Amino acid sequence: MKIGILGYGNLGRGVELSVKNNPDVELVAVFTRRNPDSVKIQTPNIPVVSANDAENWVGKIDVMILCGGSATDLPVQTPKFAEMFNVIDSFDTHAKIPEHFANVDVAAKNSNHVAIISVGWDPGLFSLARAYFNAVLPNGHDYTFWGKGVSQGHSDAIRRIKGVKNAKQYTVPIDAALDAVRSGVNPNLTTRQKHLRECYVVLEEGADAAEVEREIKTMPNYFADYDTTVNFISEDELLKNHAGLAHGGFVIRTGQTSAENKHVIEFSLKLDSNPEFTTNVLVAYARAAYRLNGEGKSGCMTAFDIAPAYLSPLDGATLRKTLL
Amino acid sequence: MKIGILGYGNLGRGVELSVKNNPDVELVAVFTRRNPDSVKIQTPNIPVVSANDAENWVGKIDVMILCGGSATDLPVQTPKFAEMFNVIDSFDTHAKIPEHFANVDVAAKNSNHVAIISVGWDPGLFSLARAYFNAVLPNGHDYTFWGKGVSQGHSDAIRRIKGVKNAKQYTVPIDAALDAVRSGVNPNLTTRQKHLRECYVVLEEGADAAEVEREIKTMPNYFADYDTTVNFISEDELLKNHAGLAHGGFVIRTGQTSAENKHVIEFSLKLDSNPEFTTNVLVAYARAAYRLNGEGKSGCMTAFDIAPAYLSPLDGATLRKTLL
Repeated sequence: MKIGILGYGNLGRGVELSVKNNPDVELVAVFTRRNPDSVKIQTPNIPVVSANDAENWVGKIDVMILCGGSATDLPVQTPKFAEMFNVIDSFDTHAKIPEHFANVDVAAKNSNHVAIISVGWDPGLFSLARAYFNAVLPNGHDYTFWGKGVSQGHSDAIRRIKGVKNAKQYTVPIDAALDAVRSGVNPNLTTRQKHLRECYVVLEEGADAAEVEREIKTMPNYFADYDTTVNFISEDELLKNHAGLAHGGFVIRTGQTSAENKHVIEFSLKLDSNPEFTTNVLVAYARAAYRLNGEGKSGCMTAFDIAPAYLSPLDGATLRKTLL
Repeated sequence: MKIGILGYGNLGRGVELSVKNNPDVELVAVFTRRNPDSVKIQTPNIPVVSANDAENWVGKIDVMILCGGSATDLPVQTPKFAEMFNVIDSFDTHAKIPEHFANVDVAAKNSNHVAIISVGWDPGLFSLARAYFNAVLPNGHDYTFWGKGVSQGHSDAIRRIKGVKNAKQYTVPIDAALDAVRSGVNPNLTTRQKHLRECYVVLEEGADAAEVEREIKTMPNYFADYDTTVNFISEDELLKNHAGLAHGGFVIRTGQTSAENKHVIEFSLKLDSNPEFTTNVLVAYARAAYRLNGEGKSGCMTAFDIAPAYLSPLDGATLRKTLL
């Protein structure tokens, strides 16, 4: 399978790395909106080309993996590139998924391509866990916890405060809440009871620390509903101790099959690198897109629409023999 | 969806219960190899009929859920009933799955039915976990732990020993092994390091306890490779404290996406009732079989071949909106 990468940030670099773990995958080219000469990639002898020249690569790339952001890149890129290629994206603005799905579906159907959107771990593997768990334990409750890991959105929100030079925000699941869920009592948990927010903030010269802390802790939606801790540190310390991209989380469903019998189903991830793991998921779904398109399928799909066998490099008989 | 149940033991009763949790499912009839008059079911006004009369129900049942055992029932029943109905089974003799698949596939294809085999939690949900985890983290190691729960096969093995009146055997995963796996060090674990075997044994009058204990602990394959504890108890105590059908387990995959970054993926189940949970999984796959057959599909499939959306009573748009 020949893949292309569109966008060479953390995700693009992750896809490039994941090719080494997937012998059936070959990287053909990296596409960028920057000046291609300014983008240095890790793999020797692979061209970096302008995203504007992508149409010249039609027929040379089986699946294009879109590594842009959900806010402004993917809503434009995914429908556009689905006209030329089978595509995979990691669109993660949950509220806008229906609209994104509809736009991509039109483009992919018109051009007979497969587009798989919202791939990664949430949305992605966590969505799969929720769907499977709901189907096999219909009478129950779902709980999703995130972390410990960096929330880019919350870090950005802190950085927009006057007097803040840099910041990292960790979302931390609260053990007591996890324990209560696992006990099967189906607790009604408030936002505050599920997650803590830990902030590491570098101030501008002369900034008012107390005022910055107050602004963070009272920020609606982002922090006001949580127990939030604010730690002021030096920029050196931030870069040294808080540069990591670790993340993870838990999907738990508890429920009953009869008056007497309760069950707990749990899926969890503990990731040293959020982008590296996410991109390995993207590559597995690229394999599915390529195969499905080879079977004549087209249109927009999500992880819900893909049978697991399509993700594996193994054939059906080998899968049944070794993993069933 | 109209379902039939073949075989009214623990699994058959579980399917009957699960109908209450799945409003789109209607139980039409229970089929038995016993005298139908001798089988009392829980649901009023549902006929219990002879398994020999099943062919009279063709066209009246969308999916037949086969609740027999893997040793001798399902190898015969699944191909036979796949000639008349869409069928689901929980065939769990891992080594014989390829042969069973081939036999069922011929029958189902010839008669244009869908047959989904080896559904439940292992094989079933645990198989899915292994397949997804391998696909998204190709460079890693899988570990499956079972328990704490009753192993029917090991309990039977003890009951065959001279002087044993009754027995229950629990398979218990060893915490130290689970912790080592979760730490990401990819340990090579021996059989003895992964699971303990706890036996509760009721002796016949005058039996030699020391000899029974020796026979259990030295039994090849079943116990000799494990740390095994043997507790002699009264039959009253066995019936009172060890009648439960709780079970569970863990599938863990650890691996790396680069030299620096490790990841841990974990799926676990903690079940009060193994048969009640298993049968809810069977019913979800019955929904899939019915829909796939409605789309013109036929032949034998496993959980690997079924897109998760087919298991859910929700339509695609609702799934994307609520669970993605």
